[in-house]
Amino acid sequence: MAIPAALSTIAYSANRPLSNSTPFSSSHKAKRLLCCASLSNFVGSSEAAGVCLSVGTHLIPHPDKVEKGGEDAFFVSSHRGGVIAVADGVSGWAEKDVNPALFSRELIAHASSLVEDEEVNYEPRSLIRKAHAATTSIGSATAVVAMLERNGILKLANVGDCGVRIIRKGQIVFSTSPQEHYFDCPYQLSSEAVGQTFLDATVMSVEVMEEDMVVMGSDGLFDNVYDKEILSVMDSYDSVADAAKALANLAHNHSMDSTFDSPYSVEARAQGFDVPWWKKIMGMKLTGGKLDDITVIVGKVESSLSS
Amino acid sequence: MAIPAALSTIAYSANRPLSNSTPFSSSHKAKRLLCCASLSNFVGSSEAAGVCLSVGTHLIPHPDKVEKGGEDAFFVSSHRGGVIAVADGVSGWAEKDVNPALFSRELIAHASSLVEDEEVNYEPRSLIRKAHAATTSIGSATAVVAMLERNGILKLANVGDCGVRIIRKGQIVFSTSPQEHYFDCPYQLSSEAVGQTFLDATVMSVEVMEEDMVVMGSDGLFDNVYDKEILSVMDSYDSVADAAKALANLAHNHSMDSTFDSPYSVEARAQGFDVPWWKKIMGMKLTGGKLDDITVIVGKVESSLSS
Repeated sequence: MAIPAALSTIAYSANRPLSNSTPFSSSHKAKRLLCCASLSNFVGSSEAAGVCLSVGTHLIPHPDKVEKGGEDAFFVSSHRGGVIAVADGVSGWAEKDVNPALFSRELIAHASSLVEDEEVNYEPRSLIRKAHAATTSIGSATAVVAMLERNGILKLANVGDCGVRIIRKGQIVFSTSPQEHYFDCPYQLSSEAVGQTFLDATVMSVEVMEEDMVVMGSDGLFDNVYDKEILSVMDSYDSVADAAKALANLAHNHSMDSTFDSPYSVEARAQGFDVPWWKKIMGMKLTGGKLDDITVIVGKVESSLSS
Repeated sequence: MAIPAALSTIAYSANRPLSNSTPFSSSHKAKRLLCCASLSNFVGSSEAAGVCLSVGTHLIPHPDKVEKGGEDAFFVSSHRGGVIAVADGVSGWAEKDVNPALFSRELIAHASSLVEDEEVNYEPRSLIRKAHAATTSIGSATAVVAMLERNGILKLANVGDCGVRIIRKGQIVFSTSPQEHYFDCPYQLSSEAVGQTFLDATVMSVEVMEEDMVVMGSDGLFDNVYDKEILSVMDSYDSVADAAKALANLAHNHSMDSTFDSPYSVEARAQGFDVPWWKKIMGMKLTGGKLDDITVIVGKVESSLSS
């Protein structure tokens, strides 16, 4: 999947035409940001120099939804240090004859156009607030937004069960936690008053360093791939585009594998869901991946001094 | 365990005398902070009003180290919104005839006296930097520091495998991730040059709301108690002191139970440690809790308007 370097902000969903990938920054230095910044001046240091995200993305729709492109949507932007966001349309709306993709796509389209908005003030929660307010489609979606400041502060807002992992020197140093009302019913931004709003977002920030890797995904990634597998895949690819594709493919393969004991099936059993008792006696248990839209964004924190 | 209300900053280790507990704030309002603050003015709002932490603590030394008080140390302070910190002395130093408690206790003593230091500037990483620089004992320790701003920003710095969970409406909305070189060898602040420093800390912040619960602990808590158990215990106690005690007791009971399949034993097996093959054939596996010092700090985010 693709990030044309000439565009500053691009919104995607899988049924839009895609061009070949050019991460919007490809500069690369090994020195850690924290080593070269005076600590007392660390926050609020020069906006011109600093770090930015080099991004690769990959989206694989649910096998039954390939033709329509699935219900995930995402965007990337090179504004300031870089902005990445994923929204996942809640599929239950199909039962009400509503296309679940409409809400997530409109939400992401608004978010992508509001990235530089003055009132948004480069705050992820404010971006969710304004994009949600502008969305008129019926439906609901989970959403996660990450905005990198040039000084290395990655600001995050999360509503629901999309997720983010930050990997430093081969280990996960930061993870979001999914928000849900109960199993398989995540917090969600909605066209209806009963849904959640920007006020329900978990709002966090993390100081990232050069060489850190940011993995953002819809639950289709995290329900099918363990954190240890994410680390293993990330260790095997230098290119952010290749890493995003490999993670999405692994999630897709697991999602189709009825014998794989996925994070989703482990959680389902923990919540009391399982095969009937007579199958349990035969040593069987609830296993398998979760068929779903799968969106993966991989960002690498790089120096922008030379870009 | 105890927090005399009259003291603004107190450092503890288990072999010091303790008085009865009085959390340093006991005001209590159900309204969420975000609902009553203008969003654009949210960060940097009045220092005088806002939120603060009401804190309960409990420390249970390793059964073999009760007499000497164990090697964990912690402090709490009511400065600004409240400061909490835990350090865990690395026990391997005992093999070199060094008391592993000396480093963690001195580190915490310095940290507690530096909370209001101008150069620290109420930044957790700076507190770790200055406390580490001031520590002259031989040894090493993991450490985590959390500082609450009155406006609801909880600032965190973490080196090693102490941890923090933030619980909102019955679910974990934020977790730290442990840093380790390999299984059972955490990142650690050290008297030796080979150790880690403040530059290796994971530095994060989270916007907390009134009624949020903050659970901080040494690895003795998180190696013996699952997140779901933490939620269950936290749901059962109104008092932060009772909740801290109940979590520490649960961790202690699990740590002594050779049949309990603890987070530690699950991780050990995942890392390739297990019983010999002939025991595996008999259906046995590596189980049991992890005997360790156990420190738990429970903080409740409360309105300080009426305090």
